[in-house]
Amino acid sequence: MVNPKLHLALVHYPVLDKNDATIASAVTNLDLHDIARAARTYGVSGYHIVTPVADQHELVSSLRSHWVEGHGATYNPKRRQALELVELHENLPAAIVGIERSEGVRPRVVVTSARFADSSLSFSQLRRHLHRGQVILLVLGTGWGLAPECVASADDRLEPIDGPTDYNHLSVRSAAAIMLDRLLAT
Amino acid sequence: MVNPKLHLALVHYPVLDKNDATIASAVTNLDLHDIARAARTYGVSGYHIVTPVADQHELVSSLRSHWVEGHGATYNPKRRQALELVELHENLPAAIVGIERSEGVRPRVVVTSARFADSSLSFSQLRRHLHRGQVILLVLGTGWGLAPECVASADDRLEPIDGPTDYNHLSVRSAAAIMLDRLLAT
Repeated sequence: MVNPKLHLALVHYPVLDKNDATIASAVTNLDLHDIARAARTYGVSGYHIVTPVADQHELVSSLRSHWVEGHGATYNPKRRQALELVELHENLPAAIVGIERSEGVRPRVVVTSARFADSSLSFSQLRRHLHRGQVILLVLGTGWGLAPECVASADDRLEPIDGPTDYNHLSVRSAAAIMLDRLLAT
Repeated sequence: MVNPKLHLALVHYPVLDKNDATIASAVTNLDLHDIARAARTYGVSGYHIVTPVADQHELVSSLRSHWVEGHGATYNPKRRQALELVELHENLPAAIVGIERSEGVRPRVVVTSARFADSSLSFSQLRRHLHRGQVILLVLGTGWGLAPECVASADDRLEPIDGPTDYNHLSVRSAAAIMLDRLLAT
């Protein structure tokens, strides 16, 4: 058994809107906090925010600094430990290069969607890969999900989270938490 | 096998603040949406918002109406299906009475915390109770968690969510999603 090396990417471009058009979504404060806290709880190696929008980079940097170095770090040290995981990238290939540099190996890129009818990997298979030491980058989309070109370029498509109903509209924050629990809980 | 009857309560009073003082926390828009969407995905029977603050009842009612009957219902019908689960109560005993009225039996009240050292119920035990047909009310606290009197009055204390690290500071939204997955996933 090894320490799993799971990285998480939250993609804001290219993602779909309600009408399946490709857009850049806005970074939200709560996506940063909720997913960083879950990532820290489950021992995730890095939480990668992907957006090409310069203003959004400034926003994320200033939020991160507040909690990691500023007043927030003393007000709530637990948030510091979570927000320290946040890294910023212009696009997904840049995130992959960054992870390859830090881990010494290119990560296997696994994309997620609530809509895959043709997934290539189950949760239990991915859990096995992780616990055998494979470096994984799990990619989540904001908005109405990852754009097709982002899905097509990945190594694997993870099976959707299957609730017991035919309704499947979890927030990306809930989906991230459930995925981490399924892949990394002891 | 029966259809599990799980109700969820999100308590805003009495809960603790950072310094373990008892407070009434504010209802947030995202607690409503994220947890309602997860509840709907996992077939939860009711999502009970508990707060004694009259202003907050007005806020929740108007949000619920927007998505269930107003413009939101046509803009995004999926949100209607989720927000329909929301019910409002002055306090936890009122929520229990309401559930007893609709289900014909008093629910077993199970409280949650990230800090229980003396839990009385594991996830697998609770899952078994649910799938055998016992009506359960799972109670989550906002802020820094449920006040002691709320914990003391419950039938059971659920084991904390155990990540693989010693950090355990999930948002209540993430915790709710993980609990529903552990208890109700197929």
